[in-house]
Amino acid sequence: MSKGLPKRSEDYSLWYNELVKRADLAENSAVRGCMVIKPYGYSIWEKMQAELDRMFKMTGHTNAYFPLFIPKSFLSKEASHVEGFAKECAVVTHYRLKGDESGKGVVVDPEAKLEEELIVRPTSETVIWSTYRNWIQSYRDLPLLVNQWANVVRWEMRTRLFLRTAEFLWQEGHTAHETREQAVEETKQMLGVYADFVEQFMALPVVRGKKTESEKFAGAEDTYCIEAMMQDGKALQAGTSHFLGQNFAKAFDVKFATRSGGLEYVWGTSWGVSTRLMGALIMAHSDDQGLVLPPRLAPIQVVIIPIFKSQEELEAISVKANEIAKGLRSKGISVKFDDRDTYKPGWKFAEYELKGVPLRIGIGPRDLQHNTLELARRDTLSKESVNLGEVDIAHKVASLLDEIQQSIYDKAMAFQNEKTTSVDRWDEFVQVLEEKGGFVSAHWDGTPETEEKIKELTKATIRCIPLEQKNESGLCIYSQKPSQGRVLFAKSY
Amino acid sequence: MSKGLPKRSEDYSLWYNELVKRADLAENSAVRGCMVIKPYGYSIWEKMQAELDRMFKMTGHTNAYFPLFIPKSFLSKEASHVEGFAKECAVVTHYRLKGDESGKGVVVDPEAKLEEELIVRPTSETVIWSTYRNWIQSYRDLPLLVNQWANVVRWEMRTRLFLRTAEFLWQEGHTAHETREQAVEETKQMLGVYADFVEQFMALPVVRGKKTESEKFAGAEDTYCIEAMMQDGKALQAGTSHFLGQNFAKAFDVKFATRSGGLEYVWGTSWGVSTRLMGALIMAHSDDQGLVLPPRLAPIQVVIIPIFKSQEELEAISVKANEIAKGLRSKGISVKFDDRDTYKPGWKFAEYELKGVPLRIGIGPRDLQHNTLELARRDTLSKESVNLGEVDIAHKVASLLDEIQQSIYDKAMAFQNEKTTSVDRWDEFVQVLEEKGGFVSAHWDGTPETEEKIKELTKATIRCIPLEQKNESGLCIYSQKPSQGRVLFAKSY
Ligand SMILES: [Zn+2]
Ligand SMILES: [Zn+2]
Repeated sequence: MSKGLPKRSEDYSLWYNELVKRADLAENSAVRGCMVIKPYGYSIWEKMQAELDRMFKMTGHTNAYFPLFIPKSFLSKEASHVEGFAKECAVVTHYRLKGDESGKGVVVDPEAKLEEELIVRPTSETVIWSTYRNWIQSYRDLPLLVNQWANVVRWEMRTRLFLRTAEFLWQEGHTAHETREQAVEETKQMLGVYADFVEQFMALPVVRGKKTESEKFAGAEDTYCIEAMMQDGKALQAGTSHFLGQNFAKAFDVKFATRSGGLEYVWGTSWGVSTRLMGALIMAHSDDQGLVLPPRLAPIQVVIIPIFKSQEELEAISVKANEIAKGLRSKGISVKFDDRDTYKPGWKFAEYELKGVPLRIGIGPRDLQHNTLELARRDTLSKESVNLGEVDIAHKVASLLDEIQQSIYDKAMAFQNEKTTSVDRWDEFVQVLEEKGGFVSAHWDGTPETEEKIKELTKATIRCIPLEQKNESGLCIYSQKPSQGRVLFAKSY
Repeated sequence: MSKGLPKRSEDYSLWYNELVKRADLAENSAVRGCMVIKPYGYSIWEKMQAELDRMFKMTGHTNAYFPLFIPKSFLSKEASHVEGFAKECAVVTHYRLKGDESGKGVVVDPEAKLEEELIVRPTSETVIWSTYRNWIQSYRDLPLLVNQWANVVRWEMRTRLFLRTAEFLWQEGHTAHETREQAVEETKQMLGVYADFVEQFMALPVVRGKKTESEKFAGAEDTYCIEAMMQDGKALQAGTSHFLGQNFAKAFDVKFATRSGGLEYVWGTSWGVSTRLMGALIMAHSDDQGLVLPPRLAPIQVVIIPIFKSQEELEAISVKANEIAKGLRSKGISVKFDDRDTYKPGWKFAEYELKGVPLRIGIGPRDLQHNTLELARRDTLSKESVNLGEVDIAHKVASLLDEIQQSIYDKAMAFQNEKTTSVDRWDEFVQVLEEKGGFVSAHWDGTPETEEKIKELTKATIRCIPLEQKNESGLCIYSQKPSQGRVLFAKSY
C-alpha cells in the first residue's frame, strides 16, 4: 500500500527523493539543477507564502519587485559580498539568437554581445541598495520596509529537490533604518516571525541562534538563523535574518539627512526563507507510508472516500458525503470528495496517505445503514468509527485537526529534545556525532581555527550560538581553551 | 497642486512616463530595459493577481512552477515558435565568475562555459510541454489545467515602463485536452475570464476578437485577444488566449491513450496577461492631476485627512477619524488615516490625487462643531459636505465606491464608442486614423498582403476580427476585393 516507497531506516536519502516525486511535489527538469514544482507541491508552497505574506504585512512591510539581472560590477561593490556570491552564478553574455546555417536550429549571435555581463540574481542586496540610494533622502523616508517574492539562481553542482537547486523560489526582505538599534530590532523581529511560522504552521520546533563569523552571510555584520532537526539527525537551516550594519549603504552611498540636521549612512537588514522550507516540512514529519502534512498547510485537510460496488451505492453514499463536506466547508475546512470510479478505494487510501492528507473519512453501504463513518488519522494511522447520531462531525473534525497539528509538533519537539546532547569530552563529542547524530551542545573557544578543525575532523559545523541558554563558562571541547558558552554543533543539509 | 505633471493634451507620452514615476508605481532600474515595480505599484498588481488567481481557480486551474531557463535546442522544436521567440532573448553562456587580476573586480571564468546555452524564458510552452510528456499517459490525466505566475524576459530595444520592458511579470496558463473542441472551449473560456476581469475590475471595456494569421502567437493555430482603447486613441492588447492545436504535442511527442484504446496527440492552449495591464489601467482612466484608480483595484480606497493647526485639534479630529475608519473597515473598505504632521493638508490632497485614491474625507475643526465632513471623489473631482447626523457614512461610502467603479467604466465605454468609427472609403480611412484615431471598423479582403500594405501606409494594424458583429459582406477598404466582414484597425501600443 505504500506504493513501493523505500524505508527511511534503509536509505533516508532515497526515501526523500522518491517521496518528493511520488507525492507529486516536485521533479527534476530538463535543465540541470532546476526543478519543476508540481501542482500539489506548489499548492503547499502557496499556503506557506500566504501565511508568511500576511505576517510580513502585519509587521508593516510591503512588497515590491526588483530586476532579475544584476550588472556584474555591482557584485564587486561590497567586498565580502563578492567573495560569497560572485562565484557559481548564471551569467548572461548575449541578447540575441539567430538561425544557424542548416536553417533548422539557432545559434548565439556573436554580434549581440553585452558590454557588461549580467548576473542572474543569487540574492538582491546590490540591485536593491543601488535603488534605495534614490528612495532615501531624509529620516522621513525611513524606515523603508520592503519584501520581494522572487526566483533566484545559484549554480550548485550537487542538487537535491527543494533542498538545494540551481533555481529556487524565495522571499527576501530588505529594510533600511535610521539607527543601529532599529535595524538590529528588525533583524530579530523577522527571526521571530520565521520561528513563529515554522513552529505554528509547519509544526516544527526550531532553535533560534546567531551564526559564527565563518558561517554568517557575506556582507552582514550578524546573521541570525533558525535551525530545525530532521529525522536522520541532521540539522537544516530554515531561515536567516541579517543585520547588515552600514555595509551596503556605504557600498552604494545611501545616506540620509538625520533629525538633527546631519548626514549619515543608513542601517540595513535582509532576511529570507525559500522553497527549502518544503524540504524541511517533508523530511521532518513524513513516514514510510508517505507525506505527513500539518493541517494548517495541507491543501486538502479531509478526503472523503466512498466504498461502493454499484452505481446505486455510490449515489446513496454521495448524498451523505456531500452533506458532510458542506458542513466541514462551512467551518473553513478544505474537503475533497473523491468519487472517481476509475480507481478502487484501496488505491485511493494509499494515494492520500502518500499525499499526507491529515484526515480520511471512509463511507460504505454498512455505514449508511448504521449512520456511521470511519475516520482515519494520517499522523498516527489510527482509525475510529463515528456514530453520526451521537457526534457533531464538523465539530469533531475541526477539533481533531487542531489536535493533529499539536500532536505533530509535540512529536517533533520530543524528537528534537531526544536528539540534543550536551557533551563535555572530545571522544564523546565524536561518538555522539557519529552514532546518534542530532544537535551536540558543547563549549567552543570562539576561534575560526577551532571551528574549521572540528569541521574537518567530524563534518559537523556550528549551526548557531543559541539565543536562549544559560550563561556558562567552560573549556572548549577541542582546544580545551576557555569558552564563554555552549554552541550547537551538527551535521547539516 | 498637480505636482507639475505634464498635460495629456500636450504630451501624452511624457504625461504617462512622469505619472508612472511620480505616483510611485515604477521606475527604470540600473539594468537597461528592466523596471523596478515600487511598493505602491506592486500593491495594485497584487490586487490584480489575487482576483485573476481566484478566477483561474474557480475555473479548475492549479498553479505550478517551471524552470526559468530553457535549453537553446528546445526553442527550435516547434518551427514557427522559434521564428517568433528565438530572437531577442537573454542568453546564459557561463556559470561562474572569478576574481580579476586587480583583485578588486570579477570576470567571467572562461572555463565555466555551458555545453548548451540556456535561454531566459521569453514564454514557457517548450519547457512545459517537454514536462507534460511525462505527466500525460492516458485520457485519465486530462484535462491538465495548469497556470504559472512568473517573470519572463524579451530583449526589447525600445522599452516603456509597464508597456514594454525587457523583464516583466505575468501569468501563463498551459492546458492539455483530449479533443480539439475541449481545447477551443478552454481558449475561449479564458478569453472570457480576461474580459470579465478587465471590465469588472479594471473598469475598462474591451473588444473580444481573433487575431489575423500575421498577428497570431508563434506556434498557435488561433490567437484570441481582448483589445482596449487608450485616451490617445491607440489600442492596447490586454490579454491573449491561444489555441495551440497539436503543435506543441507533436514537437514534444506528447501522446495519450484514448478512451477507445487508441493513441493520439494531446490538444493544447496557452493564455497570458502581464504587468502590461498596469499600463492599460494607468493610461485608460488617469487625468492631468494623476492616477484615477477603480475602487476594486485601489490599495487605499478611502483616505482621511485631518485639517488642523494645533495638536489639540489633531487629537479631537483623530477620535472622529478613527471612529469613521473603524466603521468603514468593518465593511471591508481599506482606509488610510494620514495624521502625519510633517506634511500640510494641501500637500496631502495633491499627493492622494496623484495616487488615485478614489475617495478623500477631509475633517477640520469646523466639521467637528457641525458634525460634518467633506467627501471628495477622485474621478470627478467633485466635493460634498456630509452631515453625520443625517447620513450613515459607512453605507454612503460603500455605495459611492460602487458608483465610482461603474462611473469610470461608463466613461471609458462612452469613450471607446466615440472612438470607434465605421468606414467604407479609403480616403476616409486614412483621415480617421490620422486625425481622430481610435478603432476603425472596415472591410478587409483577408490577405496578409493587403494587411501589410495598409500597415505600411497608415501604421495601423488589424487589432482583431471581433467575435461579436453582424454578418456583412462588402468590399475591402484598400483592394476593393470582396470581404466577408469588418475587422478592427488601429494604431497600437
Ligand atoms: Zn543557527
Ligand atoms: Zn485583437
